[in-house]
This record gives sequence, C-alpha cells and structure tokens, in this order.
Amino acid sequence: MTSFLIEDVPGYTPQIGRLVGMMKYVRATTLQAVRRMTQAQLDHVQDTESNSIGALLAHIAAVEVAYQVITFERRELNDEENARWGVALDLGEAARREIKAQPLEHYTRVLEEVRERTFREFENRVDDWLYEQSKWGPGMANNYFMWFHVFEDELSHRGQIRWLKKRALSHQ
Amino acid sequence: MTSFLIEDVPGYTPQIGRLVGMMKYVRATTLQAVRRMTQAQLDHVQDTESNSIGALLAHIAAVEVAYQVITFERRELNDEENARWGVALDLGEAARREIKAQPLEHYTRVLEEVRERTFREFENRVDDWLYEQSKWGPGMANNYFMWFHVFEDELSHRGQIRWLKKRALSHQ
Repeated sequence: MTSFLIEDVPGYTPQIGRLVGMMKYVRATTLQAVRRMTQAQLDHVQDTESNSIGALLAHIAAVEVAYQVITFERRELNDEENARWGVALDLGEAARREIKAQPLEHYTRVLEEVRERTFREFENRVDDWLYEQSKWGPGMANNYFMWFHVFEDELSHRGQIRWLKKRALSHQ
Repeated sequence: MTSFLIEDVPGYTPQIGRLVGMMKYVRATTLQAVRRMTQAQLDHVQDTESNSIGALLAHIAAVEVAYQVITFERRELNDEENARWGVALDLGEAARREIKAQPLEHYTRVLEEVRERTFREFENRVDDWLYEQSKWGPGMANNYFMWFHVFEDELSHRGQIRWLKKRALSHQ
C-alpha cells in the first residue's frame, strides 16, 4: 500500500529518504490517474493547444532524465540524449505529432526504468549532496530543490492528467 | 526573489524549514500563474464539469485550513468551519454557483491570511511534531505527510490553473 508517512527510508540517508517518500507518493498518484487507460484515451487531444496524457507521461520521465544528468553528472543533456528526450521535454506541437499510438505499458515502462536509475544513484549519495548548489534559471539551486522540482512538475501535470482524463473518457 | 534552495530556514526547526521552503516555492508559482488575471478570467468555466480558476484558488486555501484544524488542533472541521470552507473544499456544482464575481485580491488575501497562521503555528513546533501520526484515509499519516499533501494538492491544481489560464485568456 502507498505510505502516508514521510520519514526515514531504509537504504537512504535521512533527507534523501524523505525525498524518496514524497517521490513515491507522487508517482503512485500519477499511475493511479492513468490506470487502465486505453491507447485512444492516452492519445486524446482536448484542443489544438493541448498535450495528450501520453505526452504528459513521456514528459514526466524526460524531466527526470534531465535532472539525473544535471545533478548526478553535472552537465546538460548531450545531442544523443536530446534526440531521445527533447520532444517529450518540450511538449507542444512536435509532441502532439510524435508521441502517440503507444499503449499505457510503453509509458509506465519508461517511467519505471528512469526511476530505477534515480533511486540507485540516491542510494550511493549522502544528505550533504542535497545541499550542493549549481546555477538554475536566474539563481542558484541545490540538489534538494532540483529533485523537489522534478516531483512538483510531475504533480502539476498529474493535475492536468486528472482534468484531461475526465474528458478523454467521455469522448470515447 | 524566489529561493531555489531547500535548506534550513531561520525561525523553524530543520525539517519544518524544508517544508516551509517547498511550500513557499509552490505558492510563488501559484501566484505567478494567476498574476494580473481579471475577474472574468478567474470566473471562466471551460465546460460544464470544470472548476473556475477562482474556485481552485479558494480550494487551495480551504485545503490548508482543513489541515490546520487536523494537524494543529487534532479534530475535524466543525459546522461553522464547514459552512465557511465546505463549498471550496468540495468544488464542483456548488462552487461553480457560489464562488465567483470576486477580483484576484479577494482570493490572494484569503490565501495569505490562511498561510500566515500556518507559518505562525510552524514556528511554535519542533521537528518531532512532524512525525506524530493520525488516521488518514485507509491508513496512518504523519504531520509531515499531511503538509506535503497540502502543497501537492496545490501543485496539482496549479497545473490545472496553467492549463485553464491559456483558455481563459483566449476566451476574453
């Protein structure tokens, strides 16, 4: 069952464990929102400006990949990674064109593979790492913030997924 | 400027400070999303099932009030509180009917007043308090989780607000 306790998590240092707890809860709610959705529902585009639920799921995985590279490797995405993840990162027109015609398992498998790497890397780090800073937008962010940002972006899109889902279900 | 550092915050114990940092960032992004919105835009209802942006802002404040009562006072909302906050908590039909015709300042003032109490109470508590548990849905939640839940719900609705905002602006 999903835990409603944010606390120490075995295998992680205390602060990283709390982050892991929040990330796991967020992911459980994202997966709950898309449970049993059909390919047609995942591809539903509400209007000409809207992202499909499938594209939002791909985006959630892509954002996590981007922050893996930024925080674990201290670099930007390279060309190969941009070719793989750029469309999902940017959403919009290209995503509407390219991210479609896949079953739910396609998206959840990618989410899972990406998440596995995150947690494996977290296991090998200690809390002090969370407070290392690097340039972010107009200021400096620490790694704690950047991983908070990964799940806050997921939540924002989960909210959109919930909204779109009601409409996707009633359209099919 | 909004901080991109999750770390100790003066006036709060370490863990509470981290929560405060996350809550402040979330709120800054919510307020950014609605900045300069007109009454008509706040009242825009996308379709018959949709909540207005104004109602979502009222909901965000109401959820925070509910968790103040639950975590600070260890009780449920009483009748008077339900009369004041119930419609915003529940959203849907009654909220579409009753929460409207207010300028942005109405919503931001309520958000601010509610938030002031939260932070005042946080100042008087220590990290151990975050790990006190109480019944929550099908299980037990600690106070850390419940305040995480307050901002994760806000983020979910902020995602919806961003989506609705694009359409509200193009409708007026």
